[in-house]
Amino acid sequence: MRIFESVLNRAFPYETEKRTERYLALNENPFDFPKEIIDRAFVKELELSNLKIYYDSPDESLIERILDYLGAVFLDRKNVSIGNGADEIIYVTMLMFKRVVFFPPTYSCYKVFAKALGVEFLELPLEDGVYIPDVDVKEGDVVFVPNPNNPTGHLFGSDEIEKLLRKGAFVALDEAYYEFSKVTYLELLNRYDNLAIIRTFSKAFSLAGQRVGYVVSSASFVDAYNRVRLPFNVSYISQLLARLALENYQIFEERINWIMNERERMKENLRSFGYRISDSRGNFVFVYLDANEKNVILQRLSDKGIAVRNFKDGIRISIGLREENEIILNVLGGLRESNKLEGLT
Amino acid sequence: MRIFESVLNRAFPYETEKRTERYLALNENPFDFPKEIIDRAFVKELELSNLKIYYDSPDESLIERILDYLGAVFLDRKNVSIGNGADEIIYVTMLMFKRVVFFPPTYSCYKVFAKALGVEFLELPLEDGVYIPDVDVKEGDVVFVPNPNNPTGHLFGSDEIEKLLRKGAFVALDEAYYEFSKVTYLELLNRYDNLAIIRTFSKAFSLAGQRVGYVVSSASFVDAYNRVRLPFNVSYISQLLARLALENYQIFEERINWIMNERERMKENLRSFGYRISDSRGNFVFVYLDANEKNVILQRLSDKGIAVRNFKDGIRISIGLREENEIILNVLGGLRESNKLEGLT
Repeated sequence: MRIFESVLNRAFPYETEKRTERYLALNENPFDFPKEIIDRAFVKELELSNLKIYYDSPDESLIERILDYLGAVFLDRKNVSIGNGADEIIYVTMLMFKRVVFFPPTYSCYKVFAKALGVEFLELPLEDGVYIPDVDVKEGDVVFVPNPNNPTGHLFGSDEIEKLLRKGAFVALDEAYYEFSKVTYLELLNRYDNLAIIRTFSKAFSLAGQRVGYVVSSASFVDAYNRVRLPFNVSYISQLLARLALENYQIFEERINWIMNERERMKENLRSFGYRISDSRGNFVFVYLDANEKNVILQRLSDKGIAVRNFKDGIRISIGLREENEIILNVLGGLRESNKLEGLT
Repeated sequence: MRIFESVLNRAFPYETEKRTERYLALNENPFDFPKEIIDRAFVKELELSNLKIYYDSPDESLIERILDYLGAVFLDRKNVSIGNGADEIIYVTMLMFKRVVFFPPTYSCYKVFAKALGVEFLELPLEDGVYIPDVDVKEGDVVFVPNPNNPTGHLFGSDEIEKLLRKGAFVALDEAYYEFSKVTYLELLNRYDNLAIIRTFSKAFSLAGQRVGYVVSSASFVDAYNRVRLPFNVSYISQLLARLALENYQIFEERINWIMNERERMKENLRSFGYRISDSRGNFVFVYLDANEKNVILQRLSDKGIAVRNFKDGIRISIGLREENEIILNVLGGLRESNKLEGLT
């Protein structure tokens, strides 16, 4: 049918690196969701009778725990909702505005979803690869900004965000990596009703496979979001695991600290090898590379069963287990070392 | 912001009856998802390492089990995908066509989603409340038909569906209640590429809270659907439970037979009381009522902690546990009995 051709022409599949033994391509958490929480969930918390019903999404107890976690007195239940991953929140938000705006290099799904949905979009590159460009946005536009940015991991200044807000655009600030940066612009919700903060359980809480994200915004945005999204968008067990994750935050806190330390160690080492890297505050590092060196590195990593995410200007490497990170450092360190030696002969 | 006003004007929340002790309003399965399957899932099948990753949606093993269950040799993996409930399949399909068509009384979410998405739609009532009207549809239209219909539960003839297919419209045939009707038009996929069959694990498999539906169609529709939907749309644990449900079909088969028998018993009794009912093949019955009698019945059921679904022309009552069904029969039987007595005095 011709109708499919138009969809097949505008939409393209979301492609990710093929899964390998040591997979550092999607910024997944290197640690399993805690076995003790799973055990508690299934022995004590799970109510079998909730599986067969159209379970409330969100349920009140999850929203209450999210509010506790946010710790912002100016927020209440009307300011929070959940999504089938942060992705659903992004997807549904795109359906609510006239135009979608984003600044590459950025989260690749902004473009994938805008094309899938057939909405108008404007992509304008970051200035010098790091600053939000001076862009003519206005009411009716929704601007998507990950903070820390993905794939570079650097933070934008609150002045950069406020500039967009003052122009009247709606800003969807994607704080997927907040737990690894400890920087949030949640407080801006006090002053702007054209802002949404999007968060996820996929990264810091090791729950990517269970698809839970949340959004914090003005009551009117949350009301509109709740009307446009699917009414039963997050499963009962996913909501249960998300709530238990927040109730056991101390388990994750230790892991988050380890990942942050490991990220800093990786950055130091990569810098000492002479690589140009970004100042990442996520659970990943970004290494700028020319095409030749990038291809050599991708091949050597692939030989060791490692996949990283391939970008035009470099590679994004998720922080993995110590052993995985060591292989990364050995391969990248070894390459520069042998290049130096070759230069000497 | 004005932008929210337009969304708030077009979209309205999906309203359901308030949850009560005995809830027969949403055609949920009266039986819990089997404890033995949950135990097997968490003791033997669950791989903890899958929770932290962006787990494939769908995974191959679930698709294989669905194909086995369908048992149609002309179908392969390219013909099947899954959704966050059948609802996501409906929602995403609406985004792929120029106009949405449906025939009330029908599944209420067709209108809710069309308004939420802001897509053009045409609603044309069923002729005599049961037949698909002669409608001018063409390529670019998607026609949603539940079969058995919801809320009446009656079946449409394959000639009625083929008439739409021959006009070139895309038909999304919603077989959510297939297991209770044992009638499917899956075979039509052999002859028409403008047809999708939508199914769900929410009804016969007691998994409404876990949000898993599936769609069977031409490879080109499935390809387009996979590009427009969220890439990771169904959680790991939900996929696991859906697969285990199919692998333990015999447990559900017995329950399905019980529900079908109970439905027939309810229909016979309601008819014997003098009520006008539809020939429902779902896990529910529909009783046509005038406004006065309906309000009396809703009040009496409410007094006993029972919620049923309220429609303009009557009420839809889900088949519940034996005890719940007995209360229904007592209330509805008692009312007609006392009316008769009053008529005599």
